[in-house]
Amino acid sequence: MTGSVVIAGLGPGSETLVTPEVSAALAKATDVVGYIPYVARVAERPGLTLHPSDNRVEIDRSRHALEMASEGRNVVVVSSGDPGVFAMASAVFEAVEAGPEEWRNLDIQVLPGITAMLAAAARAGAPLGHDFCAINLSDNLKPWALIEKRLRLAAEADFAMAFYNPRSKSRPEGFEKTLRILQDACGDARPVIFARAVSTPDEQLSVVPLTECTPEMADMRTMVLVGSSTTRIIERDGAPIVYTPRSVKA
Amino acid sequence: MTGSVVIAGLGPGSETLVTPEVSAALAKATDVVGYIPYVARVAERPGLTLHPSDNRVEIDRSRHALEMASEGRNVVVVSSGDPGVFAMASAVFEAVEAGPEEWRNLDIQVLPGITAMLAAAARAGAPLGHDFCAINLSDNLKPWALIEKRLRLAAEADFAMAFYNPRSKSRPEGFEKTLRILQDACGDARPVIFARAVSTPDEQLSVVPLTECTPEMADMRTMVLVGSSTTRIIERDGAPIVYTPRSVKA
Repeated sequence: MTGSVVIAGLGPGSETLVTPEVSAALAKATDVVGYIPYVARVAERPGLTLHPSDNRVEIDRSRHALEMASEGRNVVVVSSGDPGVFAMASAVFEAVEAGPEEWRNLDIQVLPGITAMLAAAARAGAPLGHDFCAINLSDNLKPWALIEKRLRLAAEADFAMAFYNPRSKSRPEGFEKTLRILQDACGDARPVIFARAVSTPDEQLSVVPLTECTPEMADMRTMVLVGSSTTRIIERDGAPIVYTPRSVKA
Repeated sequence: MTGSVVIAGLGPGSETLVTPEVSAALAKATDVVGYIPYVARVAERPGLTLHPSDNRVEIDRSRHALEMASEGRNVVVVSSGDPGVFAMASAVFEAVEAGPEEWRNLDIQVLPGITAMLAAAARAGAPLGHDFCAINLSDNLKPWALIEKRLRLAAEADFAMAFYNPRSKSRPEGFEKTLRILQDACGDARPVIFARAVSTPDEQLSVVPLTECTPEMADMRTMVLVGSSTTRIIERDGAPIVYTPRSVKA
């Protein structure tokens, strides 16, 4: 009786973005745990138990998965996007490190997925086509001062930037501050992409100059991508193409 | 007669990491263009013409794809990993911008893929589980001074870091300088992951303290991931787990 935990990325929403590796893991699972809307994406079948749980209980969910694996079950922890990018993989490893010694030697695998920033970037063109950074704008688990410091240094480094969790009802002011910091630090009208619910029926995409961005353009389902100083727009019929060239002149 | 260009990411190597969306695009293609080893991953079939080309001819290859699409063909440009991350998407858009007006209104789509840094991170645990940056260490297309500036600012921001193209035979000294800059700027023994040819039969993974890293640990097939100051190692039987926790204390 050897159990396992597979932490699998379901991608941003469309089933056409789920890797065959993840589909195969789901087909072999005895138990699937995860946040309610992600577990809802897994088809029910005989022999599979679904364990949906609410948001913000990531450590409890991780412990539950590890306990079931210790009992010999084949557990898949589902994440949206890629499990290693602001998702469930770190939560499971936090639970492993704090848990009983035997959990360390469980068979634990992470299966990558299409993370939201890359799905959003693909829709817009190639805004992350040169050096870039990814920042989680939620200050639930880190001090706001650290976010602000990273924003200023990222602007100074002239990275393109991808923001996860830009704005929620409980903390509407963070994204407003983010925009002010970037407008101040970048000092130009570089393109900003607001990509909501990419690859789902609710998908919406807009490209707005940094100087004209306002906080309500983002919510928790939005990925925000900010170009670097070299990012370009190709105007054409319909939505423009936004891309960052591969070269930077000396 | 409406042609199209699809810029598709094949992922890091394993066929189990190719999305169904990309497989469907390849099944409909009349022409596939790309770097020789990536085109070699596409199965031949009647009605499909393969156009492999050498490295460093990305703009010529892009023009060729756009020309064929103008003539009504359904062209897939294949990239390894994700086409928007140091790969073919930016090259195609550079060719569009510099090319004839009609190219702008071609049907051009980017299909995301599993990029090497996320495949490598998944194998190691979750080293990119918190804010991070991605830097191309090749100075073929940008001045070395910019790379050095970004490395120092990324260390100051305490980002985890992912390095693409760390080292080639023609420029062996860049990665040596990178390691010296990071050893100086970070001043600790944080874990560095050398992940070579992830998801292929040649896969090799090692975790080395920053203080003990040497240049020959990387080559052009290696992704290098550097933890932040908070990145942790869970020792266990076999390879350790490397992960960056979701929280940073105030």
